[in-house]
Amino acid sequence: MTKKRIAILGSTGSIGRQTLDVVSRHPERFEIVALAAGGNVELLAEQVRCFRPRVVSARDEACVTELQVRLDALGVRIHGSIFGKDRDVERFAHGAVGLMAVATEAGADLVVAATDGAVSFDAVFAAVDRGTDIAVANKELVVAAGELLVAHAARSGATLLPVDSEHSAIFQCLQGAPRERVAAIVLTASGGPFWERTREEMADVTVADALAHPTWSMGVKNTIDSATLMNKGLEVIEASRLFGLPAERIHVAVHRTSVAHGFVVFTDGNVVGQLAAPDMRLPIGYALAYPDRLDDGRRCDDPIEALGGERGAPATTLAFQRPDLDRFPCLRLAYQALERGGTLPAIISAANEIAVAAFVAGELRFGEISACIETALERVGSHDVSLEAVRDADRTARKVAQAFVEERAARSVRRP
Amino acid sequence: MTKKRIAILGSTGSIGRQTLDVVSRHPERFEIVALAAGGNVELLAEQVRCFRPRVVSARDEACVTELQVRLDALGVRIHGSIFGKDRDVERFAHGAVGLMAVATEAGADLVVAATDGAVSFDAVFAAVDRGTDIAVANKELVVAAGELLVAHAARSGATLLPVDSEHSAIFQCLQGAPRERVAAIVLTASGGPFWERTREEMADVTVADALAHPTWSMGVKNTIDSATLMNKGLEVIEASRLFGLPAERIHVAVHRTSVAHGFVVFTDGNVVGQLAAPDMRLPIGYALAYPDRLDDGRRCDDPIEALGGERGAPATTLAFQRPDLDRFPCLRLAYQALERGGTLPAIISAANEIAVAAFVAGELRFGEISACIETALERVGSHDVSLEAVRDADRTARKVAQAFVEERAARSVRRP
Repeated sequence: MTKKRIAILGSTGSIGRQTLDVVSRHPERFEIVALAAGGNVELLAEQVRCFRPRVVSARDEACVTELQVRLDALGVRIHGSIFGKDRDVERFAHGAVGLMAVATEAGADLVVAATDGAVSFDAVFAAVDRGTDIAVANKELVVAAGELLVAHAARSGATLLPVDSEHSAIFQCLQGAPRERVAAIVLTASGGPFWERTREEMADVTVADALAHPTWSMGVKNTIDSATLMNKGLEVIEASRLFGLPAERIHVAVHRTSVAHGFVVFTDGNVVGQLAAPDMRLPIGYALAYPDRLDDGRRCDDPIEALGGERGAPATTLAFQRPDLDRFPCLRLAYQALERGGTLPAIISAANEIAVAAFVAGELRFGEISACIETALERVGSHDVSLEAVRDADRTARKVAQAFVEERAARSVRRP
Repeated sequence: MTKKRIAILGSTGSIGRQTLDVVSRHPERFEIVALAAGGNVELLAEQVRCFRPRVVSARDEACVTELQVRLDALGVRIHGSIFGKDRDVERFAHGAVGLMAVATEAGADLVVAATDGAVSFDAVFAAVDRGTDIAVANKELVVAAGELLVAHAARSGATLLPVDSEHSAIFQCLQGAPRERVAAIVLTASGGPFWERTREEMADVTVADALAHPTWSMGVKNTIDSATLMNKGLEVIEASRLFGLPAERIHVAVHRTSVAHGFVVFTDGNVVGQLAAPDMRLPIGYALAYPDRLDDGRRCDDPIEALGGERGAPATTLAFQRPDLDRFPCLRLAYQALERGGTLPAIISAANEIAVAAFVAGELRFGEISACIETALERVGSHDVSLEAVRDADRTARKVAQAFVEERAARSVRRP
């Protein structure tokens, strides 16, 4: 079997690290040909030492210099670099050029798009246009520019492989079925830490409360998004783009135990769903191995454990609840942004980022996050989607959301 | 789209009728080219009038004559028949020759094997050997002769499409995945009417008790099998044949509400499962349309309903329990027969049929069904599988089981 050549944009982030973990367990199947990271040079150097990519990119020139020093100290020979030794790494680069080189110049069969924000949009689009498959872990990319991404992929023949657990679930359930036979999909949501609270009880919860996520271990931003259910709202938008479905055919079911991740309802009345332990390496492994599946040596001698129960337990239960859009207005706003389309998904994503950062910084109450986002959706005009329009919408939405935050902060200072 | 040409062996039985119901809803996709039935000539005549097959078979010559009289009365023109009118039906036949003609002489793309017992084994094997796909609804065929059937299909390139809801579930979940990546499968079982009872409480339940099935509406034999869990035992054997898995990789989970039908655990840790309303037309429709799915105009605007809940309800739950092989020894016997192999599956199937008939006739207590089967498994020798060996095993097992029944009946007469 020829090895699948993999490039990672964002190798030192959570998804990047877990991707490398999966790759390291299957050296016979995968080869890392390029890595791009930001400023975590220490980890990047270690990754380069382990995986020996041909192309490496870091945030800026200083990072590259530091990386080369570290690699030399680690005994990794580098070529074309300031050290002029025998080849191993063929090319160092940085910034936008570096991301582009990692995505397009290392002969990758699959690019893992795992950076946050818009930094690697151009690099990902360039890879897609060359027909390279993309494992998509960059939420903003699909939320803000998903329509473009899917259109470019359709033109070039590139396959978009979702990495998010819910979208991977849907993608797995869709295998072997004609897309036009999908009646609807259901994404599950953990419900976050405040699922049992009233809107009033939620208004002033603390950052620490919000970070107590019941099932998944994630970063701060994702965990707050999970508490507001905005994560699910953004995932509904992503699902719409990735699977070509309108808002009214994408449903959310709250499922507190995060065992089941998604279901596809077909036009023939059959429903296919996916379950998995809440471990990102499972959807990552599926994206890497697609259309095959990895053999991780997993066997299964306990049906209750297979369905999410404790090993040896007599029974297990999967429970699903209807989401409450009144208590979780962020989810409603996301549906509205999707229905109205244009650059509204980009706006909601950017405004949410500002609102969450303000909440974490103590500048916004939990209950004000949705108001901040709603204000941006109302005040920033929507336009037809282009990469340029998406970037404009992002910038403007951040400004409007920031103004909202400052206004609230000023008001709360005036409070007795 | 060219229509898929369908032949049905057993058109007047439950599966046959539901198959025709599905076909009648999709006249643009399917064409009935041949029908074989037994003695229900009145219904067969009506089916011929509606679907105009080229080849029709009934149980015997008298049935064919009656059929032709009825068709004439219904205004259906028949060719080559005693009436010598213009063509519609091209050929009438009966018995084994008739089944063979329906399976092989009407140019079918798909033969629905929906007769009970061994009557159509030869016809199905002949169709398989011609490379014709088979929708398999005949349990005995797969339990007793599954190894042969799969081997013949592999040689000819025929696809075996399961019709049983559990096996259809597994088959749907396997789409797009390499078979060697299956770690295990889980078949669900309703648990039948006695799931909550102790073994002692079950010993003397009545036929009426056993016929009170919680979810599925089935025939008497199937309903009793569901009460003993032998239905699941036979399905485990079927699954082993259809999906090429050993006994230890086929699990059973009791799921009282019959919403989920089966799950596949993959070697990469992902689990894919299938849910559907307990309506046999869904798996039948999947088998008919495969590899496509039907568009039955079903839409889905309620995630809770999609996951088996009441429409509009706030929540729904899927619960799974470990089966109890002590209280339900028939399931254990089926696993043992599968593990030991040879003609033991044929023996267990035949002995079970005798035991159930005896229970329904009041000649055997409910708690004695498993003892009757166990006696047959012990006393009838197992042989390598051939169609001949399977027929022998069937005959001998019936005799041994019948002897057990008579001995018990004699003993119970002697009771005070």
